[in-house]
Amino acid sequence: MALKVGVVGYRGYSGAELVRILERHPSVEPVLLEHRADAGDHSGLLHPSGPPVIPCDPQIIKAEGIALVFLATPPEVSMELAPELLALDRVVVDLSGAFRLRTVENYAAWYKAAHTQPELLAEATYGLPEFCRERIPAARLVSNPGCYPTAANLAIRPLIEAGVVDRAAGIVCDAKSGVSGAGRKASLTTSFCEVTGNFSAYSILKHRHVPEVLLTSSLEEREFSFTAQLIPVDRGILETIYFRAVHVHSAEDLLAIYQSRYRQEPFVRLYRAGRAPDLHAVAHTNFCDIGVTFDAATGRAVVVSAIDNLGKGAAGQAVQNMNLMLGFSETEGLL
Amino acid sequence: MALKVGVVGYRGYSGAELVRILERHPSVEPVLLEHRADAGDHSGLLHPSGPPVIPCDPQIIKAEGIALVFLATPPEVSMELAPELLALDRVVVDLSGAFRLRTVENYAAWYKAAHTQPELLAEATYGLPEFCRERIPAARLVSNPGCYPTAANLAIRPLIEAGVVDRAAGIVCDAKSGVSGAGRKASLTTSFCEVTGNFSAYSILKHRHVPEVLLTSSLEEREFSFTAQLIPVDRGILETIYFRAVHVHSAEDLLAIYQSRYRQEPFVRLYRAGRAPDLHAVAHTNFCDIGVTFDAATGRAVVVSAIDNLGKGAAGQAVQNMNLMLGFSETEGLL
Amino acid sequence: MALKVGVVGYRGYSGAELVRILERHPSVEPVLLEHRADAGDHSGLLHPSGPPVIPCDPQIIKAEGIALVFLATPPEVSMELAPELLALDRVVVDLSGAFRLRTVENYAAWYKAAHTQPELLAEATYGLPEFCRERIPAARLVSNPGCYPTAANLAIRPLIEAGVVDRAAGIVCDAKSGVSGAGRKASLTTSFCEVTGNFSAYSILKHRHVPEVLLTSSLEEREFSFTAQLIPVDRGILETIYFRAVHVHSAEDLLAIYQSRYRQEPFVRLYRAGRAPDLHAVAHTNFCDIGVTFDAATGRAVVVSAIDNLGKGAAGQAVQNMNLMLGFSETEGLL
Amino acid sequence: MALKVGVVGYRGYSGAELVRILERHPSVEPVLLEHRADAGDHSGLLHPSGPPVIPCDPQIIKAEGIALVFLATPPEVSMELAPELLALDRVVVDLSGAFRLRTVENYAAWYKAAHTQPELLAEATYGLPEFCRERIPAARLVSNPGCYPTAANLAIRPLIEAGVVDRAAGIVCDAKSGVSGAGRKASLTTSFCEVTGNFSAYSILKHRHVPEVLLTSSLEEREFSFTAQLIPVDRGILETIYFRAVHVHSAEDLLAIYQSRYRQEPFVRLYRAGRAPDLHAVAHTNFCDIGVTFDAATGRAVVVSAIDNLGKGAAGQAVQNMNLMLGFSETEGLL
Repeated sequence: MALKVGVVGYRGYSGAELVRILERHPSVEPVLLEHRADAGDHSGLLHPSGPPVIPCDPQIIKAEGIALVFLATPPEVSMELAPELLALDRVVVDLSGAFRLRTVENYAAWYKAAHTQPELLAEATYGLPEFCRERIPAARLVSNPGCYPTAANLAIRPLIEAGVVDRAAGIVCDAKSGVSGAGRKASLTTSFCEVTGNFSAYSILKHRHVPEVLLTSSLEEREFSFTAQLIPVDRGILETIYFRAVHVHSAEDLLAIYQSRYRQEPFVRLYRAGRAPDLHAVAHTNFCDIGVTFDAATGRAVVVSAIDNLGKGAAGQAVQNMNLMLGFSETEGLL
Repeated sequence: MALKVGVVGYRGYSGAELVRILERHPSVEPVLLEHRADAGDHSGLLHPSGPPVIPCDPQIIKAEGIALVFLATPPEVSMELAPELLALDRVVVDLSGAFRLRTVENYAAWYKAAHTQPELLAEATYGLPEFCRERIPAARLVSNPGCYPTAANLAIRPLIEAGVVDRAAGIVCDAKSGVSGAGRKASLTTSFCEVTGNFSAYSILKHRHVPEVLLTSSLEEREFSFTAQLIPVDRGILETIYFRAVHVHSAEDLLAIYQSRYRQEPFVRLYRAGRAPDLHAVAHTNFCDIGVTFDAATGRAVVVSAIDNLGKGAAGQAVQNMNLMLGFSETEGLL
Repeated sequence: MALKVGVVGYRGYSGAELVRILERHPSVEPVLLEHRADAGDHSGLLHPSGPPVIPCDPQIIKAEGIALVFLATPPEVSMELAPELLALDRVVVDLSGAFRLRTVENYAAWYKAAHTQPELLAEATYGLPEFCRERIPAARLVSNPGCYPTAANLAIRPLIEAGVVDRAAGIVCDAKSGVSGAGRKASLTTSFCEVTGNFSAYSILKHRHVPEVLLTSSLEEREFSFTAQLIPVDRGILETIYFRAVHVHSAEDLLAIYQSRYRQEPFVRLYRAGRAPDLHAVAHTNFCDIGVTFDAATGRAVVVSAIDNLGKGAAGQAVQNMNLMLGFSETEGLL
Repeated sequence: MALKVGVVGYRGYSGAELVRILERHPSVEPVLLEHRADAGDHSGLLHPSGPPVIPCDPQIIKAEGIALVFLATPPEVSMELAPELLALDRVVVDLSGAFRLRTVENYAAWYKAAHTQPELLAEATYGLPEFCRERIPAARLVSNPGCYPTAANLAIRPLIEAGVVDRAAGIVCDAKSGVSGAGRKASLTTSFCEVTGNFSAYSILKHRHVPEVLLTSSLEEREFSFTAQLIPVDRGILETIYFRAVHVHSAEDLLAIYQSRYRQEPFVRLYRAGRAPDLHAVAHTNFCDIGVTFDAATGRAVVVSAIDNLGKGAAGQAVQNMNLMLGFSETEGLL
């Protein structure tokens, strides 16, 4: 019999994607949790279908037998709901940025806001299974990684671990994201006429996703230059990562590092030397695709890392974490 | 009375943009030069208007009193037509890559083809007015710069001249271009369904525009990492350029270098510290817009340079060169 | 010496397009009229250029010698500003829907709001020059037509006048518009992710632009079925118009009606029988392009009418009206 | 154990969509049938996965135990392959237009080509399950309907059967399609720069899909005006259908006709009166969504019908037909 799992924020892009994945998942049954007044039914369907909707009230959630709750909500809402749910023994996967960093000081520095749940911040487990898999099953609160850091860390951390990056020269991560990464809300910045035919950089060198890369890949801020940029597409992240490679002689040497690290990983795919993924390759999937180009004569290396920001960058990875937390096969519902 | 100027390749995107600019130019009158069989009139207009069309025959061109010819053609066609036109004392602005490099060896290395006009290659003047203005008026053959190198050199060369780049760490230029940069032709790669919703890197580290940056900004190949990428927009180039800055203490210091260099330049615009142009800012213009972000604590600098690939990256710059060659005001028809 | 003309609402899409056209117009000089608090300077340019900005205060407008004011504002703002400006002897071109209908009853029925200026409503001249040219020069208040009705009336009225439409069978006008037609504002409906990859119908049979077609083309509501639809493009309107033709034997007969009616019109272009314009043909122009397809055996006729909704559908036509009101050549600044 | 089914033309958009659906189908296992030289592996994946590929040779297909073959090929290839496969007792679902009409004369008139398999043309079963369900299970050759006719017939035929259309006034079907409907091939017409920012009509009144609507909905050509139009989206068809309704008094009366007809149909969904589907509602599904707007005072009715041209308009419907032919549940793999 299918286990009930709840979704708060199911009308947002990440939340709606989560519901789509959960509806096809053989072992769970999604329940939509209505948090405060929302605009009601937007579909004009005469006979709308879809999962049941109940109020987002922790007591009702418990009474309904919902074991796990996904929070696809802004950080401040997650900080409010997470402790209430944990107090009633529900486990939580939070898709916001509320619990991704380690200290209130770091949170305040990058999010420009005070953290109201320092203990949960300290307790939360970072849900990047490829690097934190063993801690996830026992966690009460899993913090789903940011979209940009997921693509960056999967590409960078194996190289740092292997010691093949000239850290003095630094790593450049030029990141591009589809517009759904900005969330589902009325905003002139993400309106069609402003975005179509355009391409723009934002939060240059100071995007709030930067510290997740520094923490996970063990980098200093001075070693990592990051620019976020908006592409006129609805979904997808592609990061072009540049560094000087040391101790390697070919693209194949770099690929061997990834192959060794990701041999058992179901959601990381590699490309032949000199080839690179594009957004279509990963759209509507939970894959992170990685391609390597290397110029042996000069040591210049370029790694392209691509994910679907709503897949491996949000909802897909959240389900991967759920699978680990609830004891299902890690790939269930995701291939 | 308006001077006649000819356009070969007027059905391509660069050629058509050239005709649009020339039609509004107060001092010239465009003539379309039909080169070999083209598909004929594609417009369904009952009464098509537009400039006159004559065969692309050097003798006829001379007889018609056409003083200057634009070649918006592939390199091999430019190599064939340029000497014929020059032999009849016509001056030429070539928009192809045929005459942008200095030696047949360099051309062969990057274009993977033999150059058939080594003397013209040696003679041609590189038409980046901001850096080669004094040589253009007397030139018989001006080679219009590539779109990517125009945005790159205008951003990079002043920094190199000022000695503020840590060249050992290298410069990264992550370049993105609209699809019209690939030319007007049937191709699966540039078909709508392959491009829409997508973003892809190509020619990583080995794009044929790289040597133009090395030559103009005096860089070694090992100092310059360049990736070309396709954005789902029709026009525009945005380059995000990363380096370690030395001898400067603020974004304002970097801006001061550009201000000093470009004070008199009508087509370079600067942004306030921390701000950056987007594609909309330069669409349908001959401007190159430059914005600087700098982190003084770590020396990391990011420069964003944006142009319209059909404007300052092709047709606009070609008209700027024509203005210099024919003795008009440099900005005529371009503001 | 150039005459000063003012623009209220210059940050909207129609207003900004108006400013672009006026800046190239040889006989006028635009002044931006700041109406209430707006978000300030959005450009990051170090040295922003552009027309001067003054407060939108009728006394100041008069003192500055501004003869004509464009209102690119919502209807309720136009109803407030128009009488104040007229009281001080300024002439006005209103781009909103405030003064397009004839009676307060009709306005209330379609706009679902009370009209506060019934006398001005009665006085205003409808600014479709192809059909109301003689009344425009002497008008104090010209109401610039809606975008959809402009494309519709230019295609339909000559046919009605010629008596070649089977009115019992009715006319279908299937209209599609780019997103800029919805104005520049934060809205989920026009956000990038909702619009890209989508196509949707709205206000089926009850769009507020319908009565303008009924009035101008002398149709009864039962004779005219109109659907407005949103295309994922920034600008352009294309209307596919269906009717049963009587008293004609070929597409050429229908074309002859248009040719006769529009022979002197600089902004209406016709296509060869069976051909039709697309949005690219009219983008960034003040043209209305019309193509006719006819099946003589069955009497079925299809007319395609295309304009740029920001050009002939708004700012371009507003400048055409200004040219007539201020005594300039009608095409000045528009070709 | 899963049954093997073959796909010819698996690199096209319909073929690739078919493979995606079949890979998730619990009762079948797709095999890719390589027909003549194709461009080989386009993916740069180090370890490409996916269904096995075998030559498209009828003897090998039989030897491999492939029971059913999908032809996602041009009509001329389908005419060549279908008889060979049927001769070896394979059953066939053809997605081309080769077998959709009834007579060679009609085929020649609309396809402007001779039909080489008149007997198969006569034998083929038209695969629109909602109207031909009983004949499909026993068919050897099912002709999958065209994308435009699927959306049109599902909207129109119930109205014709119910006798509520004023046929003298005629039906207008204004159809819009995403670009994947044109197939996956290099073509200037479908290149990104020609399509983006554009909207264009083609084959006005003479599209080859028209006769499928006439045949299935029992209309005369003079009663049906059809225009095909290209939207800048990759997938989706939306048709806006206009007629004069008789014998009905409200939109609810019209909806009742559809409800009665489609009560048992899993893939037709209805909208509340006055509401209409958009492309997003049906993207990546096998649904046909239908919405009705009606003005009782004048009898004007507008029906909006939307499908995914690659779903219900091609691959989805082909799998629905396969399910019927192979005895699976009709919705298997499609919800």
